[in-house]
Amino acid sequence: MAAYQNLTRDELLQEQKELTAKFDQIKSENLYLDMSRGRPSAAQLDLVKGLMDVLTSNSDMKCESGIDCRNYGVLEGIPEAKRLLSEMMEVPGDQIIIYGNSSLNVMFDTVARSMTHGVMGSTPWCKLDKVKFLCPVPGYDRHFAITEYFGIEMVNIPMTEDGPDMDLVEKYVNNDPAVKGIWCTPKYSNPQGVTYSDETVRRFAHLTPAAADFRIYWDNAYGIHHLYEDKQDYLLEILAECEKAGHPDMVYKFASTSKITFPGSGVAAMAASPANLADVRKQMCIQTIGHDKLNQLRHARFFKDMSGMVAMMKKHADILRPKFEIVLNALETELGDLGICSWICPRGGYFIAFDSLPGCAKAIVAKAKEAGLIMTEAGATYPYGKDPADSNIRIAPSFPAEDELRHAMEIFVLCVKLVTIEKLLAEK
Amino acid sequence: MAAYQNLTRDELLQEQKELTAKFDQIKSENLYLDMSRGRPSAAQLDLVKGLMDVLTSNSDMKCESGIDCRNYGVLEGIPEAKRLLSEMMEVPGDQIIIYGNSSLNVMFDTVARSMTHGVMGSTPWCKLDKVKFLCPVPGYDRHFAITEYFGIEMVNIPMTEDGPDMDLVEKYVNNDPAVKGIWCTPKYSNPQGVTYSDETVRRFAHLTPAAADFRIYWDNAYGIHHLYEDKQDYLLEILAECEKAGHPDMVYKFASTSKITFPGSGVAAMAASPANLADVRKQMCIQTIGHDKLNQLRHARFFKDMSGMVAMMKKHADILRPKFEIVLNALETELGDLGICSWICPRGGYFIAFDSLPGCAKAIVAKAKEAGLIMTEAGATYPYGKDPADSNIRIAPSFPAEDELRHAMEIFVLCVKLVTIEKLLAEK
Repeated sequence: MAAYQNLTRDELLQEQKELTAKFDQIKSENLYLDMSRGRPSAAQLDLVKGLMDVLTSNSDMKCESGIDCRNYGVLEGIPEAKRLLSEMMEVPGDQIIIYGNSSLNVMFDTVARSMTHGVMGSTPWCKLDKVKFLCPVPGYDRHFAITEYFGIEMVNIPMTEDGPDMDLVEKYVNNDPAVKGIWCTPKYSNPQGVTYSDETVRRFAHLTPAAADFRIYWDNAYGIHHLYEDKQDYLLEILAECEKAGHPDMVYKFASTSKITFPGSGVAAMAASPANLADVRKQMCIQTIGHDKLNQLRHARFFKDMSGMVAMMKKHADILRPKFEIVLNALETELGDLGICSWICPRGGYFIAFDSLPGCAKAIVAKAKEAGLIMTEAGATYPYGKDPADSNIRIAPSFPAEDELRHAMEIFVLCVKLVTIEKLLAEK
Repeated sequence: MAAYQNLTRDELLQEQKELTAKFDQIKSENLYLDMSRGRPSAAQLDLVKGLMDVLTSNSDMKCESGIDCRNYGVLEGIPEAKRLLSEMMEVPGDQIIIYGNSSLNVMFDTVARSMTHGVMGSTPWCKLDKVKFLCPVPGYDRHFAITEYFGIEMVNIPMTEDGPDMDLVEKYVNNDPAVKGIWCTPKYSNPQGVTYSDETVRRFAHLTPAAADFRIYWDNAYGIHHLYEDKQDYLLEILAECEKAGHPDMVYKFASTSKITFPGSGVAAMAASPANLADVRKQMCIQTIGHDKLNQLRHARFFKDMSGMVAMMKKHADILRPKFEIVLNALETELGDLGICSWICPRGGYFIAFDSLPGCAKAIVAKAKEAGLIMTEAGATYPYGKDPADSNIRIAPSFPAEDELRHAMEIFVLCVKLVTIEKLLAEK
């Protein structure tokens, strides 16, 4: 098939007729398939079901420091969980705090604390007229939702293949004292699967913020979530880079085992400089007596060490890789020659970012919904849900079974074609 | 032994000499015993160890609504956990939200949300010049720590045997719009074990707050934590009373299974009116994708229903009751006739509140520490750690084994006597 832009009006009408017939037939099948979020599949959850057998009524419930994990105490995490997560996050064991089940919750609490108490002694943000966060786009909707909830103004920063546009980041951070943070998913980014280049990470570490309480929110959610054994991205460790650059306190690093073990029943952590952690502790010791140590113990004993976790991630990859390939093949085969869209082939993470012609994304997602296929809301990858170009769609291949996914992609490419033809016809 | 006040100076000196010899001997034993917190004992934790066998790799992990509890989703708790906790909290199943492991964390987040976002549309508290909370005293130090952390002014309200002094509560709440909340542990209160009378609860429900965003923080931490089968306190259900009184939105109710199953690995919940819960959800859906559903499932299947939980609480009581009796017997036998202190015999909860002569509590706790016995810090039961009379000491009998506890009480009564004699001698 030739590029759509080269087709005559009649040729487009003919194509539209054929595709519409196909679409109507699919619609009549009353499918329902939810691909809106990056949820692991049941097969992936089965991989770690042994986690449920680690602790039984006969287990020794003491952690390495001799504390009975069934009782109160140990605010910052048991030693073996700290060791495991610090290896996973590539940070020293004394620069990490273990939390409950959700790194999103840790990020929320971090912003909330800055609102009411400032950062290491700075003016509480709620006392300021204006607080801004930089938001590399497309990005993660739940990050943007946190800053929106707190009335923080969000500034779009375009992503490049090396990470956020660092010229813009430097311009804002180094000059505007209202800029207090930037949301980053630096490895296999959500939704593009982009990994920040060494130069990008170093430029982050060398920022000279106008605001002393500026922090990089480094959500390394997909740090070990590779799709291939032989094609992996590498990310410079930001805490060490910031320290080398003389800015040890400039970054908060977040991660969790949500997409390693069970989402919702995993273990989250935050890593930061000793001074930042001291600041965090002041809140934490008031907020809770401690997080779920039994779940920490369960995780630490299940994986034993980092090599156990890496081995598990290979099994996840074996399930995820074919799904990503189904999506990428469908896009390439059905849309590759049409000149109406683009996408990035990621080496890890949970998403494929798809870009339609400008002004088509909302209509494509709506059309897919008509046929029973629920995609992530168009616009969700931008602050305030507003994609200025209306072109970005996040594809989440992890949850459906392979057959379902093939069918879903059939519907998706059909919707892309139909919506695009409609747009082209309107312009002719 | 006659009352100390009736002894002559010489008799007091003689008594002091004998007690000091005893104390020095005990001190030489180098004991270390931490009775500072209300921690369950290992024997209590063993009661619920079967909780660890409920979910195995072969279990059906779907909750009643068919959701796979291992995956993301279900923000407010799975149906069976909601049912169990709503029975426990005596509230309708649609007026409850299930959280993570810590009700303290829920309370903290509730105050934090009010600071940044107000309550059901009210002005955020961080925008106000002055916010006050009423604090029935003696009370729970971790409550007071939350309000202190947020710079909220705390006003002491004396406890009576029927609960807080309601004349004072009404005076403050109904007239001062800066009063936004009151901390309550209404049943088997921390530390006195007092249960609010029906009249007290009704007077709470009939408050007419000067501030529309005033809320009662009803921390029913010990709702089913009876010590006796035949002597139990009853507490009117506050949500229903507030609704009857035409103030359905005036109360937040909190509880958890922390002292029913495993502290730190239990399930917490909040109950409130539909309007309050709608307000809470606006924050919650931003803060997290969901709490640990597997732990919810584990709890629901372990207890099956409320009768399972009640049966378990009887077993806890069988372990706790003798310990309370050891403390009460020691106090009665050793101090009952001396006219130098008072205490309350509770029918449930985790503590015994002891009152020394004014000005003695800090010295008694310090003296005990000298002998290796760690009590709750004197003053901890008052806002800002300041007991105006310096007389209240919280005794936490749950953790030590019975023998240890007997020994601890021997030390404690010795310290009470020695410190009191010193005070009386100084005054003679």
